[in-house]
Amino acid sequence: MQNSGSKPCSCPSLKLREVASMYFTMVAAFLVILVVALQGSAPRQSDFPYKVPLDPQGLLELSWNVSYPEQAVHFQLLIRELQFGLLFGMSDRGEFENADLAVLWSDGHNSYFGDAWSDAKGQLHMDSQQDYQLLGARRAPEGLYLLFRRAFSTCDPKDYLIEDGTVHLIYGILEKPVRSLQAINISALHGGLQRVQLLKPNISIPQLPSDMKTMEITAPDVVIPSQETTYWCYMAELPEGFPKHHIIMYEPVVTAGNEALVHHMEVFQCAAQFDSFPHYSGPCDSKMKPDRLNYCRHVLAAWAMGAQAFYYPEEAGLAFGGPGSSRYLRLEIHYHNPLVFKGRRDSSGIRLYYTATLRPYDAGIMELGLVYTPVMAIPPGEDNFILTGYCTDKCTQLALPAAGIRIFASQLHTHLAGRKVVTVLSREGRERQVVNADRHYSPHFQEIRMLKEVVAVFPGDELITTCTYNTEDRSRATVGGFGILEEMCVNYVHYYPQTQLELCKSAVDPGYLHRYFNLVNRFNDEEICMCPQVSVPQQFYSIPWNTFNRDVLKSLYSFAPISMHCNKSSAVRFPGEWEKQPLPSITERLREPGPRCPPAPGAQPAAPVPLNLGRLRR
Amino acid sequence: MQNSGSKPCSCPSLKLREVASMYFTMVAAFLVILVVALQGSAPRQSDFPYKVPLDPQGLLELSWNVSYPEQAVHFQLLIRELQFGLLFGMSDRGEFENADLAVLWSDGHNSYFGDAWSDAKGQLHMDSQQDYQLLGARRAPEGLYLLFRRAFSTCDPKDYLIEDGTVHLIYGILEKPVRSLQAINISALHGGLQRVQLLKPNISIPQLPSDMKTMEITAPDVVIPSQETTYWCYMAELPEGFPKHHIIMYEPVVTAGNEALVHHMEVFQCAAQFDSFPHYSGPCDSKMKPDRLNYCRHVLAAWAMGAQAFYYPEEAGLAFGGPGSSRYLRLEIHYHNPLVFKGRRDSSGIRLYYTATLRPYDAGIMELGLVYTPVMAIPPGEDNFILTGYCTDKCTQLALPAAGIRIFASQLHTHLAGRKVVTVLSREGRERQVVNADRHYSPHFQEIRMLKEVVAVFPGDELITTCTYNTEDRSRATVGGFGILEEMCVNYVHYYPQTQLELCKSAVDPGYLHRYFNLVNRFNDEEICMCPQVSVPQQFYSIPWNTFNRDVLKSLYSFAPISMHCNKSSAVRFPGEWEKQPLPSITERLREPGPRCPPAPGAQPAAPVPLNLGRLRR
Repeated sequence: MQNSGSKPCSCPSLKLREVASMYFTMVAAFLVILVVALQGSAPRQSDFPYKVPLDPQGLLELSWNVSYPEQAVHFQLLIRELQFGLLFGMSDRGEFENADLAVLWSDGHNSYFGDAWSDAKGQLHMDSQQDYQLLGARRAPEGLYLLFRRAFSTCDPKDYLIEDGTVHLIYGILEKPVRSLQAINISALHGGLQRVQLLKPNISIPQLPSDMKTMEITAPDVVIPSQETTYWCYMAELPEGFPKHHIIMYEPVVTAGNEALVHHMEVFQCAAQFDSFPHYSGPCDSKMKPDRLNYCRHVLAAWAMGAQAFYYPEEAGLAFGGPGSSRYLRLEIHYHNPLVFKGRRDSSGIRLYYTATLRPYDAGIMELGLVYTPVMAIPPGEDNFILTGYCTDKCTQLALPAAGIRIFASQLHTHLAGRKVVTVLSREGRERQVVNADRHYSPHFQEIRMLKEVVAVFPGDELITTCTYNTEDRSRATVGGFGILEEMCVNYVHYYPQTQLELCKSAVDPGYLHRYFNLVNRFNDEEICMCPQVSVPQQFYSIPWNTFNRDVLKSLYSFAPISMHCNKSSAVRFPGEWEKQPLPSITERLREPGPRCPPAPGAQPAAPVPLNLGRLRR
Repeated sequence: MQNSGSKPCSCPSLKLREVASMYFTMVAAFLVILVVALQGSAPRQSDFPYKVPLDPQGLLELSWNVSYPEQAVHFQLLIRELQFGLLFGMSDRGEFENADLAVLWSDGHNSYFGDAWSDAKGQLHMDSQQDYQLLGARRAPEGLYLLFRRAFSTCDPKDYLIEDGTVHLIYGILEKPVRSLQAINISALHGGLQRVQLLKPNISIPQLPSDMKTMEITAPDVVIPSQETTYWCYMAELPEGFPKHHIIMYEPVVTAGNEALVHHMEVFQCAAQFDSFPHYSGPCDSKMKPDRLNYCRHVLAAWAMGAQAFYYPEEAGLAFGGPGSSRYLRLEIHYHNPLVFKGRRDSSGIRLYYTATLRPYDAGIMELGLVYTPVMAIPPGEDNFILTGYCTDKCTQLALPAAGIRIFASQLHTHLAGRKVVTVLSREGRERQVVNADRHYSPHFQEIRMLKEVVAVFPGDELITTCTYNTEDRSRATVGGFGILEEMCVNYVHYYPQTQLELCKSAVDPGYLHRYFNLVNRFNDEEICMCPQVSVPQQFYSIPWNTFNRDVLKSLYSFAPISMHCNKSSAVRFPGEWEKQPLPSITERLREPGPRCPPAPGAQPAAPVPLNLGRLRR
């Protein structure tokens, strides 16, 4: 079986041996394999290094491994209480329609396994091509193990393309016997979804030094405000005389029960210019917040919902402590409380693992993407609206060392309308490399991801971050900003050696946006409001969103000059002219990834046919 | 060989028999076929009903047939003086780069045949999949015949997709022996291109009645003006008392030597309301032209460069003569004289074949697409700019009979920048059927084409004509109009039964275009010119063509209301409000045609795999 599975698409350059092999495989598949061998020995734990429960009760447990040489994933699915079968599969955003499914079903007497797909109405169909390849099934005391294999990319247009980034896994449990695959009623199933990064990079966890210590930066006993969005600020401080250390790992500390409320957390170090900072624990936008806290903007650690512990690469650590560095830290927690719970107490924060044995390089975090400003907005009712943030050549030229920096991890961030985020490196106008891409991005699964390949960025390079949004459920424009119903487009990249550059982000020039408002108001014969007291969000909310106004907004964003934030911290820009900067121009784009589907075989091999015409031109 | 060729893409649903057959085919291809059988008997003439010389001297002659059941073309290529081989193939617009080629070459000793492709630099490569299938080669007194077959659509991404409409055939002659395919230097070849409609419809020429007569409407002894564009008007008249006849066929009469100057010709019938029309032979835009000639706008016959004789379907003919119809005809000839020849004399025109035995239906010609007006313009430097003309539901509701009309032929027309023309029928907002499509349209090959399928159009239907233009070689905007460097977007559809509707065309509302000019001038901080004496072309010429102004023009054309010409003749509209009409909205589009490339085979057939798990849930 495994033999047959290793060449799912052998069409492109049909060699004789392969054709013969295919021939015998087909015969075998039809005539011989009626029963799958029940393997005697359990697969070793190390065979499947990644594991996730699919359902909240843990009845279904998925383990898997990734083979990059084979371009395939091997799955081991443990079904603790098998009833009459189950569905397991993948779809764009976790929906049961248009899904790619492996199905195990029983008619009460016999059991079957097959590769299927669901159409837009949720009706199941057998795939014309079976790409979930069953490798084995085994009963054990804890349940039934199913072992199967799936290539990243198949040649079947009904199949899901397994890509980097988020994969929405879906499962459904068959509680009654079914006559056939087609008889399964998806809408009646008990099922759900689980988001995972299926294609984990081949990176081993670095060894941790023996002198490692931990420190918890948590805001003790916060009463989460009964409002949808709160940014909570809490000041902590390092012991006096704390020397320079390297943070080599950190992980979230989330108060049990508050997992759905703690949206993201960041630890910032304060500016060294001040000897002391006031203690504070309260909302970041409170009038009571001391102004000096605005000088605490150097990111030490960042975590967002869905992320796991974060490890620095062996050659780098994040510096903190020591002379020239402030003892004061600001913890910022974004509480997302849409159900407006009252009196909920929280003591979440981040646990830092650090060492005094400094690694060769200091690491840093840099924000790419869009400035948090309402000038970048998405019209309502869009299924696929793209906003782009730029880190320009001018900024990298000024801020990066000649030897460049190495990006080793990335955390993509948007609010609820985000659907895709991609950052691309461009050099001399040509896109060279994807820094990080998630084409099934979910704001509910914002991990920090180690990159498969470290990306080298040199002075003069451009980093272009595009975010795709869906606002089909919204009736008014979504503007950029901090609120959960406002939007962000950010890629926090983790890199070394650390530089002063903390923010390399852009937004459209506000003057050009003003021209846009005037233009569409005039064009649509609307009452022209140029009264300066009307805010940018109010202007966006008042636009009648016809196709023309939508199209022209897109044209504006892809044409108008930008305002650059090329900043040492949120508040301090690098010296230079950063307003009305030209948009980076791209002359050569990377190709969109698609299923690598080789052509089907022709009738003849790729060799010339000799002709016996005698000598020509005798 | 033919056996193996009939299933070029057998991957999709691999059946056992096919796999076995493929296996033996491959063995055969590798080991057995070293010499192509030299057929003993010549193929019959009727096997290849279509014929065209490829080169101006007629050394290469291509005959072909089309098998719609097999979805394949069989070619017979006669090479009169074979030297060391030749290239024959197809490409998007007749270029030798990115072409799909069948190559016959000789190294001086042996000859070879193969399916190849040329890359963007003109370098030849062997196709991984051989889709030009050699069926035979035969020496005859007149030369060498090569017989080969090509499916319309292959699974090879390097292959040309044979579609309806124009196909640009290319040929090249090898004058020296070559070591290998790769050694062929395309740029040094003697070669050229020939445009043909490869996929001729399966329509037989209707029988012509025995009482058929002919009449030539020609402008005698015109001295073609020494200027690039001339529309020549010539008045002719039918004999007094000429009764109603049916035109059942017509063909061009082009003065020998002027084939490249006579761009298109039309015969119009004058309005019956006037008893007589002045004789006139001169430019249509001359001040000397009598105004009354503007009442001669009912199309009787239309021909354009590249078209052949035109036959009406057996059940219809074009009525002329008889009471209520004018005796006066206006012949309009568009002379295109870019080299400004002086004193060239011409007596071209159209020869009508007509009968007194009336057929069941009167036929008519209707113009779809865009009004000839500068408000529809294409920015310079565009490789792919689309303009759309509408025939709205409101117009067809008013002008078409309840039983509808049948479109049986169509002639697409643009000037030099035209690259594609497509007309689609839409009903209740859903695109239903392609009326005529040419995705490799050339303004130098404007045939009237019989449709494969007659298209029924009912009151309330919409006919949407899109033209795609390339203005990469131009430095200023191309506006709509009559000049050869201005543009048109027209589909002349031939239909029956005849109605009063002669023109169903649109253009953007001029008021909205005016808003566009104001808008881009303001946006770009240009001096705002709203002076009414500046013409629309001058306004277009003065626009700085940045991406914003281009994008917004596209947005305007796909948003702004239209001015409809729903006309009985160019000068007379149907009663109703035709200004500021809403654009037809399309909720469902037809899919773009693409290569129908089935998926490559999976490792397993499409059948569930039975498992022996015992009874579940015991």
